[in-house]
Parts: sequence; C-alpha cells; structure tokens
Amino acid sequence: MYRSHTCGELRDSHINNEVTLSGWVHKTRDKGFVTWVDLRDRYGITQLVFDEDRTSSELIAKARELGREFVVQVTGKVIERASKNPNIPTGNIEVLVEELIILNESKTPPFTIENETDGGEDLRMKYRYLDIRRNPVKNNLIFRSKVSMAVRKYLSEEGFIEIETPYLIKSTPEGARDFVVPSRMNEGQFYALPQSPQTFKQLLMVGGLDKYFQIVKCFRDEDLRADRQPEFTQIDCEMAYVEQEDILNAFEGLTKYLLKEVKGVEINSFPRMTFDDAMKKYGNDKPDIRFGMEFGELNEVSQHKDFNVFNSAELVVGIAVPGGNSYTRKEIDKLTDWVKRPQVGALGMVYCRCNEDGSFKSSVDKFYDQNDLAKWAEATGAKAGDLICVLSGAKNKVRTQLSALRMELAERLSLRDPKVFAPLWVVDFPLLELDEETGHYHAMHHPFTSPKPGQLELLNTDPAAVRANAYDLVLNGNEIGGGSIRIHDKETQATMFKHLGFSPEEAKAQFGFLMDAFQYGAPPHGGIAFGLDRLVAILGGQETIRDFIAFPKNNSGRDVMIDAPATIDETQLKELHLKVEL
Amino acid sequence: MYRSHTCGELRDSHINNEVTLSGWVHKTRDKGFVTWVDLRDRYGITQLVFDEDRTSSELIAKARELGREFVVQVTGKVIERASKNPNIPTGNIEVLVEELIILNESKTPPFTIENETDGGEDLRMKYRYLDIRRNPVKNNLIFRSKVSMAVRKYLSEEGFIEIETPYLIKSTPEGARDFVVPSRMNEGQFYALPQSPQTFKQLLMVGGLDKYFQIVKCFRDEDLRADRQPEFTQIDCEMAYVEQEDILNAFEGLTKYLLKEVKGVEINSFPRMTFDDAMKKYGNDKPDIRFGMEFGELNEVSQHKDFNVFNSAELVVGIAVPGGNSYTRKEIDKLTDWVKRPQVGALGMVYCRCNEDGSFKSSVDKFYDQNDLAKWAEATGAKAGDLICVLSGAKNKVRTQLSALRMELAERLSLRDPKVFAPLWVVDFPLLELDEETGHYHAMHHPFTSPKPGQLELLNTDPAAVRANAYDLVLNGNEIGGGSIRIHDKETQATMFKHLGFSPEEAKAQFGFLMDAFQYGAPPHGGIAFGLDRLVAILGGQETIRDFIAFPKNNSGRDVMIDAPATIDETQLKELHLKVEL
Repeated sequence: MYRSHTCGELRDSHINNEVTLSGWVHKTRDKGFVTWVDLRDRYGITQLVFDEDRTSSELIAKARELGREFVVQVTGKVIERASKNPNIPTGNIEVLVEELIILNESKTPPFTIENETDGGEDLRMKYRYLDIRRNPVKNNLIFRSKVSMAVRKYLSEEGFIEIETPYLIKSTPEGARDFVVPSRMNEGQFYALPQSPQTFKQLLMVGGLDKYFQIVKCFRDEDLRADRQPEFTQIDCEMAYVEQEDILNAFEGLTKYLLKEVKGVEINSFPRMTFDDAMKKYGNDKPDIRFGMEFGELNEVSQHKDFNVFNSAELVVGIAVPGGNSYTRKEIDKLTDWVKRPQVGALGMVYCRCNEDGSFKSSVDKFYDQNDLAKWAEATGAKAGDLICVLSGAKNKVRTQLSALRMELAERLSLRDPKVFAPLWVVDFPLLELDEETGHYHAMHHPFTSPKPGQLELLNTDPAAVRANAYDLVLNGNEIGGGSIRIHDKETQATMFKHLGFSPEEAKAQFGFLMDAFQYGAPPHGGIAFGLDRLVAILGGQETIRDFIAFPKNNSGRDVMIDAPATIDETQLKELHLKVEL
Repeated sequence: MYRSHTCGELRDSHINNEVTLSGWVHKTRDKGFVTWVDLRDRYGITQLVFDEDRTSSELIAKARELGREFVVQVTGKVIERASKNPNIPTGNIEVLVEELIILNESKTPPFTIENETDGGEDLRMKYRYLDIRRNPVKNNLIFRSKVSMAVRKYLSEEGFIEIETPYLIKSTPEGARDFVVPSRMNEGQFYALPQSPQTFKQLLMVGGLDKYFQIVKCFRDEDLRADRQPEFTQIDCEMAYVEQEDILNAFEGLTKYLLKEVKGVEINSFPRMTFDDAMKKYGNDKPDIRFGMEFGELNEVSQHKDFNVFNSAELVVGIAVPGGNSYTRKEIDKLTDWVKRPQVGALGMVYCRCNEDGSFKSSVDKFYDQNDLAKWAEATGAKAGDLICVLSGAKNKVRTQLSALRMELAERLSLRDPKVFAPLWVVDFPLLELDEETGHYHAMHHPFTSPKPGQLELLNTDPAAVRANAYDLVLNGNEIGGGSIRIHDKETQATMFKHLGFSPEEAKAQFGFLMDAFQYGAPPHGGIAFGLDRLVAILGGQETIRDFIAFPKNNSGRDVMIDAPATIDETQLKELHLKVEL
C-alpha cells in the first residue's frame, strides 16, 4: 500500500496518527537543523519535517538529496505545526518522517510546476504531462469532468438516452473538410470521421428513441484559426415530437442546472431575441447582454443635414458609452484609431459628448445642432456624462464594426464580468446565407434545418428572406450551442438540397439513406449541439479552449508531445492501396 | 405541442382527461362498427378507439386509412376499456379519439416492427432505423445507456476523473493494425486512430491526475471475426500509487455495484485464481465458474498400465459430467464425435460410467480395473450417476479441447444460467507469449506491463516463465476486463522493448515521449480496461455485441445503411497528397 491518506487530507484530528503518504517533492527548504519538504499530489500539499532532534542523521541526509519532482513515499507521525499556514487546508499539521522511500527520481523539469510557470506555450505542450501537474491545468481538467458529469446527470434524469454513434462514417463534401480513413478491407474506399453525428441522431429519432444525447468527439479538417482544434467535443442532442419551444425549454433547463451546479449561479432571466433584432441592437448574432450599450439607429435623425458621409450611408448607428464624456480628446482620437485598424475597418468615427449640463458637443457640430444631437442621445439611450460613438456605412459592415467597438469598450470598462452569466436564445435565423465569393447560397445552420412553416415557396423568389426554425444559445457573447427543427419529409429535404446546389444524383448518393428513412414514418424532430470545449472554458471564466483540453494540438494540427502526425511504413501504405504524392 | 402524455403513461387515474398523444401506428383492427389503433412510441402502446356511436364518420374513415408506421397525433378523452389488457401498463384505458392529424405517412416497412420480426440480419441492418423501433433493440440501447451512466456515477463518486484523450494520434506498428488518417496540413504524414488510450492514460498518471477513467471509442483494423467491430468502446481506467491489490479492490467494487444497480444481483463471492490454476482446473484463462466440472489430472492414475494412448500423452485429464451416466451409448458416441470435430480437434475420448452401485464401466476396461477407475472418479470429483470424460495429448491442446467440451456440456445441461453472475479475477498472467509461427515472444497484455518484482532477470534465461502483474476480470466465461501494473521507469521499459524485438531507435521513435516522461517523476501506476460492448451484452444476458450497438458494421467493416466506406473525390485525394493504387 503506497499511502494511507492523500496529501490534501490531514487535519488537526489526525494529530498523533501514523500515516503513509506518496507524492511529488514540490519544494524543499533546508534550515540546517531542520529540513522541510512540501509533498504534493492531486489533492494538495502536506509539509514533511525532518529535524536533528527527532530524525536520524541518515534520514536527514536522504531528505536533503531529494530533487524537485522526485516521487517519494513517507511514513511518519502527524504533528501540530509550530507555525501554521492558514492558506492551505493541511496548514495546521506536518508529518514527522520516520521512513522515506524514493519511488522514482526526476530530472530537473524544464519549467517550474507552479501556478505561474516560467515555461512558454511550446515547452509546456511538449511536456504536457508536467504542465498537467500544475494546479491551473489540473483544475481545468477536473472542472471539465464535473461539467460533463452534470450534463449527463441532468439529461439522463430528463429521459435522454446516451447513444454512441459511429466514428467511421461516410464523407460528405458539403460543409467543412472531412478527415478520411482509408479502408484496407474495402480497397480504394474511405471512411470519414464525423463532423457531427447529425444524420445518425436524426435516424435515431426516426428509430423512435425520442430523446437522444451524446458527448462525442467530432472532427474538422480546417485550416486552424487560433483556438480551433481539429478534434473537438460536442454535447449532441435530439428530440422527437417537438417544436422549437419544447427544445428551448429543455435546454434552458440544462443551462440553468449547469450554472447552478458548477458555478452556484441562479439564472432568473433567459431572454429570447430574433436574429434580426440581435443584428439591429448589437450588430452581432451572439450579443453579450451582460451590459447595455445597445445600438441606436440614427438614419432618421442624421440624414436631414448636409453631412454627406451620413447621407450616403446605408446605416448610421451609434452607442452610448457610459461615463465616456470623461475621455480626453486624445483618448477619443485613440478610439477612432482603434476602429480604423484593418481588423475593424471603419473609415472614421463621429462622436458626441453628453455634458453634465444637458448640452452636447460633437465632432460634427458644423452640421448638427443641439436639437439634432438630443435626438441622437435619445436613440442611443445616452445620459449626461456619456459619450456617443457613431459609425456609418453599409449596413452589415457597420454593424460588425460597431459591435467590435462595443465589445472593446465593455472590456475596457470591465463590463464583461466573468462571474456574471447572461444566457440568451437567438432565434429565427435565416435559412440560407449568401457566399459572397461564389454567389451561391449555403445553409446557415445545415442542410437539414427546416424553414419556417409556409416559407418554403419563398425559396424560389427571395432565398435570403426565408427564416428557419433555428436557434443559438448564447452565453456572455459566445455561441455555446446551436440547433434547429429538422426537415422530416423527403420532398422538403429534396427541395432544400436542390436550392443548395445538389443534383438529385448527388443528394441521393450522399444522403439517400436519410431521405429513404423519411419515407418510413419519420416523426417531427429537432435538436441542438453544444461545443463542450468552449462551454467549459466560458463556465470556467476563461477564453482559451486549449487550456481545458488534456492533450491539445497546435495550430498546425500537431501533437508536439507525441510528435504526430508522422510518416507511416511503406507496408502500411501498400496494404491500404495508397501512394503518397508530394 | 405534439403531446400531453407519452404512449406509455396513461392509467386509470387519467380517465376523463383530455389528452394529446403522438406516435406510430403499430396496428389497426377494424371490426366494422369500431376501429382500434395501437399507437406506439418509445414509452409504450396506447389503444385508440374510433366507433360509430361516438366518432364522426369522417374521422372513422380517416382512421381506417392509416397504414402501419404512419406517424399521427391524436387528441381525445381517456376512457375505461371494456376489455382490459393486463399485459401492458396502459391496458386499463383507451383514448376515444376526437382529432386525428397525420404527421407523416410511411411506406410499408420491409419487415415487421415486432419483438420477433420477419426481417433477416441484412435487411434489418440496411434499415437499422426501423430495426431500432423494435423493443428488443430499443431496450438493448437503453440498457447500454444505463450501464454507462452507472459506470460513470460509481467511478466519479470514487474520485475518478473522466478525461478525454485524443483520437488523432500516432501509428505504432506493434500490436493490431491501426486505422490511419492522412493529414492535409502535414503533407505525407498520417495520424492513427487509437487502439486504446494506453500511453495517454499513463501520461495522465505521470501528470498527477491520480485516478482517470474514460468511456471511449477505440479502433482496430483487423480482419473481422464474427462479432468483432472495427470500432468498439472501452471503459478505460488508470490509477497512480497503486499495487495490483488496490486495483482489484477498486474494480471489484465497480463490478458489484453494476450488478446490483442494473441487474439487482448481489455478489458475495469474488474469487481470485492464478492463470496457471485457471489453465489447470478449467483449461481456459477465462473460466466460467457458474458450475463445477473442474478438470481432474489423471497422469498418475492412468499412466501405470499398458494403455499407450495415455502413456505417451503429456497430459491425461478428465471431467465429471453430472448425471452423465444416463447418457446412452449412442449419446456418448455423439459426444466423442463432437470432440473429434475439426473445431475441437481431439483424436478420441475415453469415458467411464459411474454406476449407482459404486461400480465403474469404462471404454478402456481392458486396461484399467475398478480400483484404477475409482481413482479417476476421485480426481475428477465424479459421483455415482456421473460420466467421466477423459482426453489426452499435448498439455495445451488437450486443455483447450477439454475446456470446449466442458462448456458444451454445461450449455446442454443448462448450467450457464444467464441470470446467475459469477465474476472472477484471473491473476499472474505470463508476461510474454510465444508466437508459434514466428518463434518470437510478444507481450501477452501489452509492452507496458510490468513483470513481477524480481523477475526481470529471468527474461534473459526463461522468458516464458516470467509472470506479470497482469489480471483479467472474467464474468461467466467471458473476459470483460483486463489490465496490469505498468512499468514506470525508463530502464525497465527499455529492457522490455528490447525483449520484444524493438531496436533502441524504434523504441525511441515510437514511444520516446513515454520513456522521456518516465524520467520526470513517474509514479507507480496501473489500470484496467473493460470492453463495454461485451460487458453490456453479458449483463443483458446475451452473446452478440452487435445487438447492443446502435449502428454496427458488418463483417467486411461496412455500414450497409449509409453505404460506407465509399470512394472519395479526386480533389479530396489531391489535397491529401494521395493516390489510390489498386
């Protein structure tokens, strides 16, 4: 037996007990007559003591030779500490060591195993197993496990069944790029790894399973932007005999439960907002509603004068920055520079100070009088002491720009409190999205999403106007889940494929099994999928998903620890009937 | 809202309530003046009634047109049934339908959606979504979900953390064949799908996570024997600072919990047996101990006479068949034919009847007297009324043959009761196994398994004699889990790789990251993995794992429903720098 207790367990009540502990040497301090060792394991740190009065000189010599991260087993007596450490749960006691066994030695680790480490990202990834010993990483992984368990508990109790869908499936060129897996037994053929279990969960609904969920790995062979992973985890859910309302209610329940269970936060407000409203009010389909600064559209109150910049703009829109009138001219100029950065791309910014005396002072006083500016204040909800920032231009572009400014200002004003959680449903998404490059429409959610009732005909005349039974769950400005009511009849599905540019043959080859299934009594159904990596990061009050993944890949899709991917044997290739052509 | 209740929910207490149900038309019976429809969903069946007295003729006409598996929504009043059906929970009531909406039609399904169906395996797999509507399949999937949840609950409460390990890893030629995944971003390189998360879970122990588990898909590109799947699910576990005893105790706990939780069975006996004993007593490293018929070795009491068949045999071994003396000569001849089948491969069988009067009658009375045969009875534990069956030959072969006979007889005697559960640890497995074809030793468990303390030197002189800290969990004659204490120091691991035929360069290229990790304070650790598919099947009292997988593949590794694997686009291949060469 390697231990009677863990390193996080001993308290006053254990004093005088004989105990055996195992763990890593976190730190040693040698004061000559006494040597202390901090012994660490997953559960905490316990102070070991060796002193000249009570410990054999042989044992003291052995203790002095311990290096950082040595693995040791000690037996000794729990004693009261002379100087207590109120910062750790075991701070009242220490263990007077009687026996010390070195279970394994350690080379000096390439970075310090501390909450704040001196190791850079690359080094920490190469030695991820050492990085995981650090509390922040370890706690993130434990937190992730807790979130997953809570999800499973809630959904199981709500009657959802976790069903494993296959990983070796069929490649479908629609959407992102698939990872493929050559089949040795079926020469020249390939499986694909799932981008999501979408079609399988729909088939489970056709199969009568009624409520399905799965926490499941999904795969996308994309060029990796920062903080994207080629493999990621989804909480995947589907329900039969439901309308959008049923799904929103079910997963509002899950969200509230999770926030209560893992964060201790009670959610009382769970608003819903249409996509159109979100774009209008926040310039964004995943608005952070922890704070205000809603958009005020100013076309009516700004296009009646001689200011051509505004007059020629499709949209003139502003936000009120709380307390922003305190900004110096220089600070405002910097803000203007910020929106003009290529990442944001505005051509300029108009501002209007709201003075304490109720008067206004704008950068366009030449064109607008106090009366005009009062109307701007009204439209943006600006109060005395605020600053109104106004952008103008093409509607979609200017909304995106002002949204970026809104988020930046909120960050600077500390309005994005990681301890506050404000969930929101965004509903009534467009069914289709125009790809500006190709001029083709593609499915905004996916090709299985059903249009709003009665809007199928509109696909022929005004595709962009068709709204879908599609919804996103937004938390603190992040999309954490998205889903839709699905098409469940063959004809509508065929129509959708046609509008997405599939020939009937292509549709049949790729999704024939699904359309066949729809002919055998497919119930109405819909679902949602959550990105677990992001959800956990947001619940953890952090932004980087990589910190919540045990063994993440870098931006080239490489695991630098195991050094994968790698070349494979010629014989392996031959068995797969493949040849590499560089 | 599609339903106010499910089809399994209505009872006497709901009588006179207005309800809305949705589901599939399971069956219709038309008696002219009255039409009944059995409406089915995941939760059960509810009888709908349409009759001339109380239902509009229009509605009756509509009901009469309903086909099997149509999806309908009905609203009506719950009424007491005239003739109750005690066999179903909703059998006391029926719903007098007032409104009927056909949500979706159905073509006639290719097989009946009944507990016993007329559909063959191939057809059921092609239309798996219809097969899943059948109770036996649906219940198996629900059962699987229940088992998984119970595993997670138990392990979480025991302090295990579920951690997701990566799916895109590195190919290692050792062991079974890997499925590989070409990397587009790393030209000419490949990921491999994990055969198990073995090295990652060990790294998590090096990382200090102490207790890990994961229910995880694993992949093996093997030629598929019956009832093997290219992708399968493992309950994967690892613990640090443990000896074999700690692991056996931990997973004895899990097994008992599972049997109690999902089967209501209390396990009081959880024996342990060495590999050598299992082979000696049962001829098998996964003995079914629900019944006796232990082997009696007869060399000493059978090689002293002139019977050359026995005298020349390495092993003479018998079992006592309870009540077997009642077999006719013809039946015994048939048994002899059975052991002589090529699948078993014995050259013949000697038998000895144990008469009620205490006398014996054997097929080799020419050589052995009553005194000799009494000793056979003693060695095999045969009682009056039993039949002793004796095989002889090379030790390993004859054990396998007699084990097959033992299992066959137990089956015929109904001793393999699927309601009885008899778990067993088999311990002290050999470290290495001789591959008779190549003459090379390979790891019996895997190359990370630690030899018994002090036996490392023996590797040089008598590799086959080295025993490992390796154990299997056996349930009712099936290996449901297997694991080992791992090597945790670089030198031992290097020695193991050497004995397994790795050059130092190969070992470094493939497992360098693990051996590196062992140099930074690797704790003693060990673990176990359970095959979830098989575990669930056995707990479910069945043998075929395919019946417990939502979308299984056939023996060619094909998913016949979605028709995968399939060819992929030339452009996809080009992006991957691959060419197919048939």
